[in-house]
Amino acid sequence: MGVVDDRLAELGLSLPEVVPPLASYVPAVRSDDWVWTSGQLPMVDGQLPTTGVVGGGVSAETAGELARICALNALAAIKAEVGDLDLIERVVKVVGFVASAPEFTGQPSVVNGASNLLGEVFGDAGRHARSAVGVAALPLGAPVEVELLVKLRAR
Amino acid sequence: MGVVDDRLAELGLSLPEVVPPLASYVPAVRSDDWVWTSGQLPMVDGQLPTTGVVGGGVSAETAGELARICALNALAAIKAEVGDLDLIERVVKVVGFVASAPEFTGQPSVVNGASNLLGEVFGDAGRHARSAVGVAALPLGAPVEVELLVKLRAR
Amino acid sequence: MGVVDDRLAELGLSLPEVVPPLASYVPAVRSDDWVWTSGQLPMVDGQLPTTGVVGGGVSAETAGELARICALNALAAIKAEVGDLDLIERVVKVVGFVASAPEFTGQPSVVNGASNLLGEVFGDAGRHARSAVGVAALPLGAPVEVELLVKLRAR
Repeated sequence: MGVVDDRLAELGLSLPEVVPPLASYVPAVRSDDWVWTSGQLPMVDGQLPTTGVVGGGVSAETAGELARICALNALAAIKAEVGDLDLIERVVKVVGFVASAPEFTGQPSVVNGASNLLGEVFGDAGRHARSAVGVAALPLGAPVEVELLVKLRAR
Repeated sequence: MGVVDDRLAELGLSLPEVVPPLASYVPAVRSDDWVWTSGQLPMVDGQLPTTGVVGGGVSAETAGELARICALNALAAIKAEVGDLDLIERVVKVVGFVASAPEFTGQPSVVNGASNLLGEVFGDAGRHARSAVGVAALPLGAPVEVELLVKLRAR
Repeated sequence: MGVVDDRLAELGLSLPEVVPPLASYVPAVRSDDWVWTSGQLPMVDGQLPTTGVVGGGVSAETAGELARICALNALAAIKAEVGDLDLIERVVKVVGFVASAPEFTGQPSVVNGASNLLGEVFGDAGRHARSAVGVAALPLGAPVEVELLVKLRAR
């Protein structure tokens, strides 16, 4: 167990299994000392717990919890690619897409679900640049999708 | 003709001409050993073959074919920037924006048009991280826009 | 005053104060010789001068002026992170999100507000790859959000 694994356990969190996509894309790609994840949906045991758009059936609070799950799934994708989350030097960038009714403008509070998780897990190394945007629709009707870019310690 | 050029020819594909944008942006930028493309529209001979949103006039199948064209245009932009597609070590990241009616949630199948092309052309080196999102509208009414990040072999 | 600061002054522009976000994210992150900014809203003195969607209450011209402000705010975020805008070797990538009515497809003209500013300030070094997309809604009702990736001169 690494330091980050221990921290996840302290937070009562465990990383889910990563289900590799069937197409020509993969959950995460390492190139030099960076890892880019695919956009992560808030899958729990292979299912979306909630579908719909925020501001139209899905509350911002629920969506924030889903964003937290997206971030956890992204960490699982990174661990599957690099083997050890302790290799992460910095969470560099987060993009959070929030399926939004046209009048919903609280995307930052939703994506905070992901940002706060990363802060809890990585401390200062988890402080990232971030974009939060409201989109028309997401795959399978997911209310949130989150992608990460992380920098690894130089080899 | 390089290896990738040969593979494109085997697939019956040829790269289009790149029309440089008139503004302060360019089709692709190389920085160190990475190349970022601009978001590519499915232009064919300077025209969009189809406009509209998926789930409202444009089928997912048609949009998938357009996403394939976007990916081909992105490769043309990269070739114009670096001179030789054989320099590509890995396709790192793909973002596919799909102009979507609110109830359309099949963005992954659309963006597979781009992902599968990259797999056909580059094999394992074409396996990328990917985000697929459904947006309200795209430039000129394009149903799809795709951007790539690729890593070149170290010089 | 650096060269870029002088150029901004010649253009009659001054960088705003950067207000650090309260969550686990930050305005910009440097990693190796790259700097990623958070998505910048067109804040002026902590307020959005205009809210709404383009093609539905906000004109493309107004939104273009707001995109210019976003780019200026992004430069302020970079300067706060690295101390000196003369360290910028190249503006690599710009993503412009435009809150758009479904029938509005002029996102490129809006995001030109950001692209042209970068060209005016940095010349050839300001020529970037770019994606412009139309989204359903943006934080606080902002009509535009712009993020930058820049490469610094190697240390």
